[in-house]
Amino acid sequence: MALTLYSHWRATAPYRVRIGLNLKGLPYDYAPVNLQAGEQHGGAYSRLNPQELTPALETDDGRVLTQSLAILEWLEETHPNPPLLPADPLDRAVVRAMAGIVACDIHPLNNLRIQQQLTAMGIDDAGRLAWTQRWINDGFAALEPLIAAHSDGFAFGSQPTLADCLLIPQVYSADRFKVDLLPYPAIAAVAARCAEHPAFQAAHPDLQPDAKPK
Amino acid sequence: MALTLYSHWRATAPYRVRIGLNLKGLPYDYAPVNLQAGEQHGGAYSRLNPQELTPALETDDGRVLTQSLAILEWLEETHPNPPLLPADPLDRAVVRAMAGIVACDIHPLNNLRIQQQLTAMGIDDAGRLAWTQRWINDGFAALEPLIAAHSDGFAFGSQPTLADCLLIPQVYSADRFKVDLLPYPAIAAVAARCAEHPAFQAAHPDLQPDAKPK
Repeated sequence: MALTLYSHWRATAPYRVRIGLNLKGLPYDYAPVNLQAGEQHGGAYSRLNPQELTPALETDDGRVLTQSLAILEWLEETHPNPPLLPADPLDRAVVRAMAGIVACDIHPLNNLRIQQQLTAMGIDDAGRLAWTQRWINDGFAALEPLIAAHSDGFAFGSQPTLADCLLIPQVYSADRFKVDLLPYPAIAAVAARCAEHPAFQAAHPDLQPDAKPK
Repeated sequence: MALTLYSHWRATAPYRVRIGLNLKGLPYDYAPVNLQAGEQHGGAYSRLNPQELTPALETDDGRVLTQSLAILEWLEETHPNPPLLPADPLDRAVVRAMAGIVACDIHPLNNLRIQQQLTAMGIDDAGRLAWTQRWINDGFAALEPLIAAHSDGFAFGSQPTLADCLLIPQVYSADRFKVDLLPYPAIAAVAARCAEHPAFQAAHPDLQPDAKPK
């Protein structure tokens, strides 16, 4: 099945799906959406995904999937090997809770539309940075003991899971927003481990076709 | 298996899990957490769920599950009937995308800790209300065409799914924050249908043991 991923190089939600596709060994076409230029609003992308957020994944029979968690669960169900979730239901719930902390309680508070809304409300650069750092720190403080309790190299156990697909893009974002990982040694260790893994390497923002040179 | 749900009557994330437990026909003990009084911080609840958010679901062998989506997926995997997800993977992805719009892109922007943070940043009542309404409206505008395309009584098809578990508490919150449902007839129709369903009725905030009288 040919897959097309609508992505923006630096946005963390499509970065999660790139990792998942790479872990599953699934090739895909990369369709860039320039969020900074507002390409998500109106026009072709908006017709594809009326929510005007990335990512969207299009199948060759024209079905469009949205929401990164839903896409990753679909990948898991349709391409079960290698698995992104452990076998035991309680373990799966732990992995999904880790993913949920990033997907629900960190990222949505910090993405582009929120930064733009805060600016419109008169919050200055320093205020927006403090806002962003607070939610990353709150979320990482929740993730750290969970990962410390369950990690054996990766966030849960010794193989990459859905939790790593979510965590690594969030660590990338934390670096961008100058969050110190020193209080989170378990997270930092997982990030170092994933940085050596080809599926995570190939998904890195800097290697995407639409990446801006530094 | 005896289950204990740590819940706050008016918080929407535990409300989702109450609906799910009721749809599955699973009895549970109700353990109230007074979020307004700060009972989630420090103390016994914080030891149970270091993220200090509701809900948490405790099993009788002492395992604690957190994050409402992870809990609902666990319920689905351990108690598959009646199903909260359709059988076809692409359909499941649509239901999970609906759930994700609420769980990721509406609710986390509007919950108690965000309201408190905005207040601390000097945003007044009117500013906070406008903030809250914006994200509900953005999310409902994304949900409306999805639900209109897939609903046959409930959000997806003719039986309640994970999407309804997420949608109905968000509609309750929208009412609380004075969001007009007139632009969202498909959402309003699903809400009316669910209001007649005993699983949704029993989960309503006003019927919980810790509900405050109006």
